[in-house]
Amino acid sequence: MLHIMPQDLKQSMLPAIENEMEEIISQVDNHGYQQFHEMMAYHLGWVGEGAGPEARGKRFRPLLLLLSCAATGSGWEKALPAAAAVELLHNFSLIHDDIEDNSPLRRGRETVWKKWGIPQAINSGDAMLTLAHMAMLRLDKFVPPDILFQAVRLLQETCLRLTRGQYLDIDFEKRENVSIQEYWQMVEGKTAALISTCASLGALIGGAEPRTCQQYQDFGFYLGLAFQAQDDLLGIWGDSAITGKSNESDLICGKKTLPVLFGLSRNGEFAARWKLGNIQPSEVSQLAAMLESEGGLTFSQEETSRLTLLALEHLQQAIPQEPAKGILIEITNKLLKRTG
Amino acid sequence: MLHIMPQDLKQSMLPAIENEMEEIISQVDNHGYQQFHEMMAYHLGWVGEGAGPEARGKRFRPLLLLLSCAATGSGWEKALPAAAAVELLHNFSLIHDDIEDNSPLRRGRETVWKKWGIPQAINSGDAMLTLAHMAMLRLDKFVPPDILFQAVRLLQETCLRLTRGQYLDIDFEKRENVSIQEYWQMVEGKTAALISTCASLGALIGGAEPRTCQQYQDFGFYLGLAFQAQDDLLGIWGDSAITGKSNESDLICGKKTLPVLFGLSRNGEFAARWKLGNIQPSEVSQLAAMLESEGGLTFSQEETSRLTLLALEHLQQAIPQEPAKGILIEITNKLLKRTG
Repeated sequence: MLHIMPQDLKQSMLPAIENEMEEIISQVDNHGYQQFHEMMAYHLGWVGEGAGPEARGKRFRPLLLLLSCAATGSGWEKALPAAAAVELLHNFSLIHDDIEDNSPLRRGRETVWKKWGIPQAINSGDAMLTLAHMAMLRLDKFVPPDILFQAVRLLQETCLRLTRGQYLDIDFEKRENVSIQEYWQMVEGKTAALISTCASLGALIGGAEPRTCQQYQDFGFYLGLAFQAQDDLLGIWGDSAITGKSNESDLICGKKTLPVLFGLSRNGEFAARWKLGNIQPSEVSQLAAMLESEGGLTFSQEETSRLTLLALEHLQQAIPQEPAKGILIEITNKLLKRTG
Repeated sequence: MLHIMPQDLKQSMLPAIENEMEEIISQVDNHGYQQFHEMMAYHLGWVGEGAGPEARGKRFRPLLLLLSCAATGSGWEKALPAAAAVELLHNFSLIHDDIEDNSPLRRGRETVWKKWGIPQAINSGDAMLTLAHMAMLRLDKFVPPDILFQAVRLLQETCLRLTRGQYLDIDFEKRENVSIQEYWQMVEGKTAALISTCASLGALIGGAEPRTCQQYQDFGFYLGLAFQAQDDLLGIWGDSAITGKSNESDLICGKKTLPVLFGLSRNGEFAARWKLGNIQPSEVSQLAAMLESEGGLTFSQEETSRLTLLALEHLQQAIPQEPAKGILIEITNKLLKRTG
């Protein structure tokens, strides 16, 4: 592995991830079930209008898993079943989220429920969740039974934490008051649990000791929190939220994100307007400026930085090996520099 | 076990099943998640309006699993985690089915989506599916790793078959023509897969040889098909469908059940009226009589009998032991004598 350039490593992982997922999803592609297969293949960005790399997202979670595995000094190929599993788990949650949030579009394409109706979308999400768990069992060719069971259990527990976070997220919508502490509890389940599991699963499959696995898990945990804090920030001050497409701002849909909760806790001009609801696209840039002047942007930036540093500290303590180490640090730092 | 009466055996299994399920579901009952726990406990008939044995259903699947285990000559207690798993899997599918079918009531009580909204209902179904998989891992205290692994895989594959059957069921609704062959394909996934798995999991955990497990699996498979055929028959000629509550007849909602598909294939008077749709409660008894005179009732009865006999043949070949044997035969024969 010594002479592999970081970019080459990532570029060889990406097609291997797609290939592993395709094999798993193809289990559904039997006579009479082609359309059922198509729903999942469409969602994953492989077929249908707008299919291609843009429709697939960054495959951030499986990459993180494979890189964490490689960073322990092990070959990453044996972690492919787990990489496919976490990406399928993530995508199951997106299919169901889109129904729950009533979102007609994802990455510029119609969502599964919009194309095939809510009943088929619920059911194809259920199938994808099941395929995620099935994917994990394919590790049996590469790891001993005790590691296999730890991995299976970890994915299940993560999935339960996902549904807990989602419960809180849905519950927050109808509640008047949500504290920042409750917000973090929600994000721990909805975002950080899976990202944390990606890092620790990679280390576990790589053969790391429990203490090292824990460092990877903590790295992923803070990375996940930072990821969400930055996402929330971009939902108000990001390129597409602030310029032109103001209807994509989180301020429009009344989402209780980190900067909004900060603004509400200040109880100033921003809070007064936000609580009235029904925010129009024409008001978005003014309201974003108001929240910025009350400290909402600085607070969110500082939280993202603080959490990113915590993530990097835990990564360093895991003593990761090159070239994976460099890419993990790069991915983490990029978080702070995203603009959209 | 020699002196235990069949009725006593069933009566000691039922509370043990509830207890195992409660322990698993209680994993969700933490600070901040009480309502999330309540959604699942309500659906399972433990809390809320109308809670009690009536709201719980017969717990047919976990009983079948425990009885199959006992029938191999083994103690049934070690199969409790699997019994809880199959009942949770069944109930996850009911929570999602109720959304997909737009059903406001189940066993006379409001459905989860009706009480807490579609987003929370989708998510609590997801959590229950996850808890079903988690329940299975509790077998690790009672069986060796290879049996545990087989059990985990079997539940996952069954879950995938469930979603396939559900895909077909939803698809049938919008299709003009559905063949009886396609109907059986749907029922194999939607009903028979899980019932079949209950019987074979029981035998597997009981320590039966693969050949015997296969006999239990076949027993459960035909039992599942017979179960659905009888259900379909009762949906038209059962007590609540034919007398008084005609609005509960499957003829009202235009469901493509076995007798209906038979009637459509005859292309007679029944088919002509059914295809026009919009069947009123006042027409139900006349239309049921029409289908009966065209042979729909006899056909469905004969199919149920044929499949029940096949089920019993496979059960006999498995050489089950008393007292579980007697209860399994009793359960199977009762199928033919249900009236509602």
